[in-house]
Amino acid sequence: MIQRENLYVAIMAGGIGSRFWPKSRTVLPKQFLDILGVGRSLLQSTFDRFSKIVPQENIYIITGAPYRNLVQEQLPELPAEQIMAEPMRRNTGPCVAYMAYKLYQKNPKATFVVAPSDHLITDNDNFFKTIERAAHFAEHNDGLVTLGIKPHRPHTGYGYIQFLDEDLSDTGLQGEVEGVRMVKTFTEKPNADMAQAFLDSGDFLWNAGIFVWRADVIKRSFEQYQPDMANIFAEVGDSYNTPEEDKAILKAYEQCKNISIDYAIMEYADNVFVLPSSFGWSDLGNWTSLWEQHEKDYLGNAVEGNGVIIYNSENCMVMAPDGKAVIVQGLTDYCVVDTKDVLLICHLSEEQRIKEFHADVKRMKGDRFV
Amino acid sequence: MIQRENLYVAIMAGGIGSRFWPKSRTVLPKQFLDILGVGRSLLQSTFDRFSKIVPQENIYIITGAPYRNLVQEQLPELPAEQIMAEPMRRNTGPCVAYMAYKLYQKNPKATFVVAPSDHLITDNDNFFKTIERAAHFAEHNDGLVTLGIKPHRPHTGYGYIQFLDEDLSDTGLQGEVEGVRMVKTFTEKPNADMAQAFLDSGDFLWNAGIFVWRADVIKRSFEQYQPDMANIFAEVGDSYNTPEEDKAILKAYEQCKNISIDYAIMEYADNVFVLPSSFGWSDLGNWTSLWEQHEKDYLGNAVEGNGVIIYNSENCMVMAPDGKAVIVQGLTDYCVVDTKDVLLICHLSEEQRIKEFHADVKRMKGDRFV
Repeated sequence: MIQRENLYVAIMAGGIGSRFWPKSRTVLPKQFLDILGVGRSLLQSTFDRFSKIVPQENIYIITGAPYRNLVQEQLPELPAEQIMAEPMRRNTGPCVAYMAYKLYQKNPKATFVVAPSDHLITDNDNFFKTIERAAHFAEHNDGLVTLGIKPHRPHTGYGYIQFLDEDLSDTGLQGEVEGVRMVKTFTEKPNADMAQAFLDSGDFLWNAGIFVWRADVIKRSFEQYQPDMANIFAEVGDSYNTPEEDKAILKAYEQCKNISIDYAIMEYADNVFVLPSSFGWSDLGNWTSLWEQHEKDYLGNAVEGNGVIIYNSENCMVMAPDGKAVIVQGLTDYCVVDTKDVLLICHLSEEQRIKEFHADVKRMKGDRFV
Repeated sequence: MIQRENLYVAIMAGGIGSRFWPKSRTVLPKQFLDILGVGRSLLQSTFDRFSKIVPQENIYIITGAPYRNLVQEQLPELPAEQIMAEPMRRNTGPCVAYMAYKLYQKNPKATFVVAPSDHLITDNDNFFKTIERAAHFAEHNDGLVTLGIKPHRPHTGYGYIQFLDEDLSDTGLQGEVEGVRMVKTFTEKPNADMAQAFLDSGDFLWNAGIFVWRADVIKRSFEQYQPDMANIFAEVGDSYNTPEEDKAILKAYEQCKNISIDYAIMEYADNVFVLPSSFGWSDLGNWTSLWEQHEKDYLGNAVEGNGVIIYNSENCMVMAPDGKAVIVQGLTDYCVVDTKDVLLICHLSEEQRIKEFHADVKRMKGDRFV
């Protein structure tokens, strides 16, 4: 347990997970699934992880209103007041603003971690050390801290963070600053050549979407770079942390634009720091990344479902409900995902088209399949 | 309607259809399925066909005891007395002997057609003409008549019949004999080279497993070539066509060996004739033959199921229940068969292994899947 009474965690659990369709469904998105077959959903695993370093009363889950009950079911130990329900989807910008104003109202000295609910972290110890250092830095300095993952291959599915490789000791920054770097720029997902160049250069990191900052600092950033949004969330005023909060937040969200925290703040701010990190991270962003993380047989097949039998197949991801017999013969590099009412068979190299399939099924066959 | 009061039809519906697993199941074999999506099961289609040329009271269905109710459900117009239930599976030899002795007891002048219940015939008119000629020949001569399909390609999945290409007029045979030929030999399924040689020679026909003969003639053949079996079925005696029949037949089957009609009689008999025929025939013996007969899209995909969507796929057979959304991307020459509790994905060139998969699933996952 990190001994910091002012440290909070806000776990973002509002995604709809269409890239994992049909395993992930509108009524049960990816973060609520035990997609790696470990016995706990990704949200539960994320909650379990943070429970080891901050008191449970400091952990908040922010999700879409339709998923509030699902969060309560999956985390029965969490008081209802610690579940924040967004009335509509407005991307991560308003989500972070909501957290910042609410936590600041609760505790003006709050520092908080913003973390996705649906990522995989395999090295908890290193993750905890990284959070500890980032929180220490954020508490002592007016900086926005992001965690950057040291890349080990030229991944084209992630955004990258370029940093300035200059030691920040003796620059007037407070506390322990070793390893912390200034961010030079955030980049979009690169093509393969660019990703290789990023990897070779040594000064690019994967953007894990994990942030650490003081509530007052990120609040000031909204005031500076997104004054409209700052006003909207300031107007909620005394309603934060009261029974009036939901109603006031509905009004606030109705006025908010749809914008990510990266576009809203990170790309403008000049006080952005990054902590180059390694803690066995994957965003589990698609079937290929899930396949990579999954236990596999000696031919590279990752299988979920106690009725699956594989013949002459390699590097496949096969998921089926327990109790269904599934014979897969002669496939290489495919994902086969069977559910009660949807079956998907798709070459893994074409999985970016799953959103298209998802839309086609919705249009041609009906909403009940998505 | 062929005006022959002594003409009967015995439709064999005892198969368990494991080559069509998982669509065909032990509790619902292929002949009971509307596997071509025409609105009637193969058995019903076979019954409908024969109903056009013989009176319904002359049509018998012979099936396994577990399927007796299923036959009654599918053919409610058929009196229970016309459903013959085999107490155990003993191949086609005992099946034909049972029919022969029963029908002979009923009508010593009976001529009967033995026909599989699960084949496809697309040209009913030519089929009827062929049956008419075969029945005419069998009524007038002490011969065993089989229908041989003129091959149009070197099929390796069928047995072949080699005939002597000699006109039988002026040989003492009675009635209309034009086109009828003596059988030289029955052959097993050939390899590809042999099948091509058969096709090129012009004197080989596909063995469709359809026979026409008088009850007294086939009965005498059993007496001559399978005297043990003849004794067994003779012992049933007066019990045929009485409430005692099932009990007596159980005793008979318990003593019978397992043997096909080809091995029991056809390969020994010297009075075997064949009628070279063309009436759009397929034994629908496997997924490939079903795919060949099925309506297909312009890329050669045959689809059953109102929720199937195909991308970048060719020459696939995709079967799913209505109401299930199925996305198939990037497959060529596969069969994808989804059912409530079994999913099969298999390259069509490997479909002969389905019996192996079927056995593996039974062994590893349980009887309920087969």
